[in-house]
Amino acid sequence: MDPVLLHALDLVGVAVFAITGALAASRKELDLVGFAFLAAITGVGGGTLRDVILGATPVFWIREPGPVILCVVAAVAVYFVAPFVEYRYRLLLWADAVGISGYCVMGAARALDAGASPFGAVVMGVMTASFGGIIRDIIAGEPSVILRKEIYVTATMVGAALFVGGHMLGLGFWPAAFLGAIAAFIVRAGALYFG
Amino acid sequence: MDPVLLHALDLVGVAVFAITGALAASRKELDLVGFAFLAAITGVGGGTLRDVILGATPVFWIREPGPVILCVVAAVAVYFVAPFVEYRYRLLLWADAVGISGYCVMGAARALDAGASPFGAVVMGVMTASFGGIIRDIIAGEPSVILRKEIYVTATMVGAALFVGGHMLGLGFWPAAFLGAIAAFIVRAGALYFG
Amino acid sequence: MDPVLLHALDLVGVAVFAITGALAASRKELDLVGFAFLAAITGVGGGTLRDVILGATPVFWIREPGPVILCVVAAVAVYFVAPFVEYRYRLLLWADAVGISGYCVMGAARALDAGASPFGAVVMGVMTASFGGIIRDIIAGEPSVILRKEIYVTATMVGAALFVGGHMLGLGFWPAAFLGAIAAFIVRAGALYFG
Repeated sequence: MDPVLLHALDLVGVAVFAITGALAASRKELDLVGFAFLAAITGVGGGTLRDVILGATPVFWIREPGPVILCVVAAVAVYFVAPFVEYRYRLLLWADAVGISGYCVMGAARALDAGASPFGAVVMGVMTASFGGIIRDIIAGEPSVILRKEIYVTATMVGAALFVGGHMLGLGFWPAAFLGAIAAFIVRAGALYFG
Repeated sequence: MDPVLLHALDLVGVAVFAITGALAASRKELDLVGFAFLAAITGVGGGTLRDVILGATPVFWIREPGPVILCVVAAVAVYFVAPFVEYRYRLLLWADAVGISGYCVMGAARALDAGASPFGAVVMGVMTASFGGIIRDIIAGEPSVILRKEIYVTATMVGAALFVGGHMLGLGFWPAAFLGAIAAFIVRAGALYFG
Repeated sequence: MDPVLLHALDLVGVAVFAITGALAASRKELDLVGFAFLAAITGVGGGTLRDVILGATPVFWIREPGPVILCVVAAVAVYFVAPFVEYRYRLLLWADAVGISGYCVMGAARALDAGASPFGAVVMGVMTASFGGIIRDIIAGEPSVILRKEIYVTATMVGAALFVGGHMLGLGFWPAAFLGAIAAFIVRAGALYFG
């Protein structure tokens, strides 16, 4: 796998989750600091849990300023744009779907790198993808997305399992990763579209 | 202490807590994936917090597949059996009582191993025993067991303190461990039976 | 920076947050064990998250007994004194204001020590200061202080940013620390007084 591209994808994931956090802040009518706080926690939450559980500390956003800056930029942008967006919750759900599709694969990939068993890697993928959204919902006082839409966890599980399985069957990193991410997105998008 | 037996007891604890997570999923009428998710989080939650706080990373379920497989098996079993169980919540509480009795001692034991002070070891025992149940209740949206039954924390505190005290007074590992675990169970069972 | 004095300030922070946890337990009419549990979680919560994210494990309260003893003493004291206190919630908020003013600076200081970027250090300061109160509110089942008073996060952000900025501009450790802590307190106290 290409570390530079992987790192870039990590940052895309941070930005996408930060946007969902800022959209939740918008629904709760918080001020700009509340936007930044929820954006940052949602943006870096999943990756922080991943690094802490794998022992990759200090976690990824401590040394390099990129992830934090991205979260603040996302918060400010959403703060000024959100009032003109008609379907904020719908947008939040779709952005979240993109985020979990990437994160379930990347969480599993980092776990394999750290010597995880295939089972451990799938669980790590599911956790990395869903943790940011769980704390976003808990802090914003909304019913957890986990209970509301069971197909949420299913999508991340399918994505992480396909990636780990493809990887074990000798598929290269990127083919397996795209397979997993696209499958996760299709499952989650299907649930959003038909649910 | 015998590491093989200790490890086996760890797995028993994971299975027992996973069952309580699956029973909570059953009460919420989740689908099979929801069962597996709640079972896994409840099953490995306490031990994960313990390993992260002590710095024993990657945490215990990353490298070896056993704990995760156990959680999935527990989830599937409860999914098919629970509809025939009349008193699911009662069963959850009793399984939970068995789980915390073992975990309060084992959390304290690992902390002592990592160089903890007696006070730090008791707190670690209480946290290891109660954390899985706390996140189970938060995610399932139930009032936390901590507030509902204060004798919950008391039981784990008594168990951890008796184990640490017995250990410091020169009692061997297993006598102190059984003393702590049985005392914790008696306190919690008394609260369940008479409360 | 003087490690002995810094360590002493850490303990003051633990004690102050433990008092707010015990006051929350008092409002919920828990028993003495419930007091000790909420006092300990609130007292060491922020510092535990800080140490885990920075990789400073085992965390600070494992090896030395001081922080845990302080939490228990605070819990017992509040347990016997609180019934005579007329404005317990008001007192909780003011004690919390003192706690976050110190912790936002100290969290940022430890992060810089661990090689954090200025942005990472500010986020670490905000998290260290607010995490104890967040889990206190979640476990006690109260609406999170984050949503209720957005000026809460603002105060810790101002404090951490002034400290990090002052430090980068060549101000000594203690002048920058006092500047940050006092600014955080003024912002939060203003919100409490006029809000």
